[in-house]
Amino acid sequence: MVRGRSLAGELIGNINFTDYFWLLLTGSVPSAAQRRVLDATLVAIAEHGLVPSVQASRMTLAAAPEAFQGAVAAGLLGCGSVVLGSSEAAGRFFNEIARMQAAGEGVEQAATAVVKDYRAQRRAIPGYGHPLHKEADPRAHRLFEVAKEAGCAGRHIEICGVVEKLLPELVGKALRVNVSGAIPAVLLDAGYPLVALKGVPLLARTAGLIAHLLEETQRPIGFVMSHAAESAIGYDGTVPPGFEASHD
Amino acid sequence: MVRGRSLAGELIGNINFTDYFWLLLTGSVPSAAQRRVLDATLVAIAEHGLVPSVQASRMTLAAAPEAFQGAVAAGLLGCGSVVLGSSEAAGRFFNEIARMQAAGEGVEQAATAVVKDYRAQRRAIPGYGHPLHKEADPRAHRLFEVAKEAGCAGRHIEICGVVEKLLPELVGKALRVNVSGAIPAVLLDAGYPLVALKGVPLLARTAGLIAHLLEETQRPIGFVMSHAAESAIGYDGTVPPGFEASHD
Amino acid sequence: MVRGRSLAGELIGNINFTDYFWLLLTGSVPSAAQRRVLDATLVAIAEHGLVPSVQASRMTLAAAPEAFQGAVAAGLLGCGSVVLGSSEAAGRFFNEIARMQAAGEGVEQAATAVVKDYRAQRRAIPGYGHPLHKEADPRAHRLFEVAKEAGCAGRHIEICGVVEKLLPELVGKALRVNVSGAIPAVLLDAGYPLVALKGVPLLARTAGLIAHLLEETQRPIGFVMSHAAESAIGYDGTVPPGFEASHD
Amino acid sequence: MVRGRSLAGELIGNINFTDYFWLLLTGSVPSAAQRRVLDATLVAIAEHGLVPSVQASRMTLAAAPEAFQGAVAAGLLGCGSVVLGSSEAAGRFFNEIARMQAAGEGVEQAATAVVKDYRAQRRAIPGYGHPLHKEADPRAHRLFEVAKEAGCAGRHIEICGVVEKLLPELVGKALRVNVSGAIPAVLLDAGYPLVALKGVPLLARTAGLIAHLLEETQRPIGFVMSHAAESAIGYDGTVPPGFEASHD
Repeated sequence: MVRGRSLAGELIGNINFTDYFWLLLTGSVPSAAQRRVLDATLVAIAEHGLVPSVQASRMTLAAAPEAFQGAVAAGLLGCGSVVLGSSEAAGRFFNEIARMQAAGEGVEQAATAVVKDYRAQRRAIPGYGHPLHKEADPRAHRLFEVAKEAGCAGRHIEICGVVEKLLPELVGKALRVNVSGAIPAVLLDAGYPLVALKGVPLLARTAGLIAHLLEETQRPIGFVMSHAAESAIGYDGTVPPGFEASHD
Repeated sequence: MVRGRSLAGELIGNINFTDYFWLLLTGSVPSAAQRRVLDATLVAIAEHGLVPSVQASRMTLAAAPEAFQGAVAAGLLGCGSVVLGSSEAAGRFFNEIARMQAAGEGVEQAATAVVKDYRAQRRAIPGYGHPLHKEADPRAHRLFEVAKEAGCAGRHIEICGVVEKLLPELVGKALRVNVSGAIPAVLLDAGYPLVALKGVPLLARTAGLIAHLLEETQRPIGFVMSHAAESAIGYDGTVPPGFEASHD
Repeated sequence: MVRGRSLAGELIGNINFTDYFWLLLTGSVPSAAQRRVLDATLVAIAEHGLVPSVQASRMTLAAAPEAFQGAVAAGLLGCGSVVLGSSEAAGRFFNEIARMQAAGEGVEQAATAVVKDYRAQRRAIPGYGHPLHKEADPRAHRLFEVAKEAGCAGRHIEICGVVEKLLPELVGKALRVNVSGAIPAVLLDAGYPLVALKGVPLLARTAGLIAHLLEETQRPIGFVMSHAAESAIGYDGTVPPGFEASHD
Repeated sequence: MVRGRSLAGELIGNINFTDYFWLLLTGSVPSAAQRRVLDATLVAIAEHGLVPSVQASRMTLAAAPEAFQGAVAAGLLGCGSVVLGSSEAAGRFFNEIARMQAAGEGVEQAATAVVKDYRAQRRAIPGYGHPLHKEADPRAHRLFEVAKEAGCAGRHIEICGVVEKLLPELVGKALRVNVSGAIPAVLLDAGYPLVALKGVPLLARTAGLIAHLLEETQRPIGFVMSHAAESAIGYDGTVPPGFEASHD
């Protein structure tokens, strides 16, 4: 019995995994539009190459191959505030603006007020900018497209665009919305619960980590990466007189 | 670029999460039958109530609410050999029988030989029996039905049934196939890779854990469970003369 | 070569583990007083019975006995802000008061200002009070005694006592200093670095977790606790008409 | 009340952390010789530079700075069979030889039989050899010296040396005992319990990880290492016609 439904009688074989995830979180089966948007966001961030949490996960499997689950766990532990947490943070940011709007404020006024408030508290604007690129993130662009195709683009996507337009003036830099900004915008417009936003990157990355670890068991690179990483850092502590470095 | 395809151009919005997981693991998009079987197995084990790993995960969130990812990781760390590992172990067991069959042995002879070999090594037969129940597991039954409906029931499901029939004679007990036996049987028949079997319970349970943790943030029971668990265990170590227990 | 010293030539056999921990953190070997205070704090919190993180750790080992390190990790993941983090939080609280004092404020004025500031931000005063007990924590009392015996009781212990005296008036409740308040007070007086405070409960609890897990391998209670915990919680979701609970 | 002793009344301030760890594991306070040997082994492996588990831990903190405990946990998850598990494996290996000796066999006969048995099962001889070096491990040498100074060198150290002497003939290579071989030899001679061997590297590495993470908060290198590691690996999957790599 799960969420009022019989697991063997009603769910297995009749519902796909994405729908079941939505059901577990909310108690209802999603509409076709909701399913499509959730799938798109999960696909958008499941895999992103050899990011730090994937490296940590692969090194952990190389060192402790008896515990595949431990390597997955190690990878998830790096899905924190700096990397994947910005999805949830951006959702809260858009939600603040949406609430001011719902209380009667114009969208530009509301966005300006919330951005200024974040800056006053020296908080970064979550969901915008990228350490390396200045152009638009193609994944973000595609997610907005999918939401429109699915017929559920709404207020949060609008807010997301308004903020992007205002940022050059408000913070002095042209920061483009990134994938961590687009994900909460499309999910909130689809009716996905704000409090459950952090579940999306975590579930998605678990899929990506499992695929990386499967590859690690077949084509190991954990220790190779570790060696390269170690070589990039020099010891600069004190040494006793006459000491010469060995490489143990 | 993921597995030779453009993420934003080809995948986001055009492929669902289950297909993408199969793609990440194998390099190809699954057929409709493969997708249906993988979905069915993920749904079958994502959620199973307050099992130990869910309790560990909820207690962890109660104690460290700042790190949702840490609570998910703590739950996954309990997805080891005793609990969810039996899916993979049962897959390897069926595979050994299938390989003997492929080499020309009859299915009953092959099954008998492998079961006897496990018993000689004092290994449990993975995928059969349940700590509490003697009747058939309705989830296992349903998974076999789904495989037949999808048109991909084959050799591993047959092996699974043959072993169930032989067990009373070979081990002296009527053990019914359980969900951890049915999952690898239907997945291997669908062409899912043996080496990736452990990924299915891990991904499925991550979805279940996220839903439990979301509930924990809204209706906390972590410390209630912990108190009940503690009360079930009495201290029976030595005490100094005159000592009386306090309850700090 | 560790912190400028030869590991095999100078450290192994010549320095104990507590000194080595201090050396790794600070670059210097502690004085006899510093060593005694650090030892006392590590001993004070290493073990505290079947607390939630210990339960999570034991349940994890029961479910995944192949990965002892995974069970230790699961236990540490529960050493977060609610449970062990209050030691570090209390250290930062005392430090704020000490800095105002260093800037010329009287200790009572400084303590009053910082407590009022915490209350204005609706933050709890860390290091005081206990969910069950109103009397003094004997571990806290003993830690102060040890600091005095070692000759390094100073400003932070004084602040700690002043706050305890002021609390009834400032927050309307007589909250006694607890072990998480005493630990940073004695460590900071001994010259232990503020930024390293969180390391003390983590190292101490690792020792406690290892001992619990060793016992779990010999006298397992993980599943017993889990069963008691599960029984304490009733399902209160919806069910379809005619449903009767089974106990799978 | 811990192991029959009052925590505040008897233990805090009167016992050091190493003694307390031994007490938690065994129920008794160690002798001076036992304490010295345990301290020496903990110091010998607490810190070993930027090994893979330290890198995983630092990258995890860089990505999730809100959860220091998560970064420690990620580091411990890499303390598995390949890296630190060999200490326990070597302890079991020496113990098998010691038991044959206790049953009347000569030490060389017993060692030869057990080594041959391992080779027949294609198991590596744990505790010998080093990926890079052929000469003796100075930490191992120092640990044997400490055991002799403490007056508790005995049968397991003898076995350890006999195996080293026999290896060229039995396996065709001159493998020298390494630190993971020396640790169980000196601990077992000191009376430390075989079943608790895995606790020593885990506790020691926790101290090392905490020091690394403290440094990471002050001089971050997590993302630098990650970048170097990523650069060392080229993508060699398929690409669609006309694709050019970007560096997102």
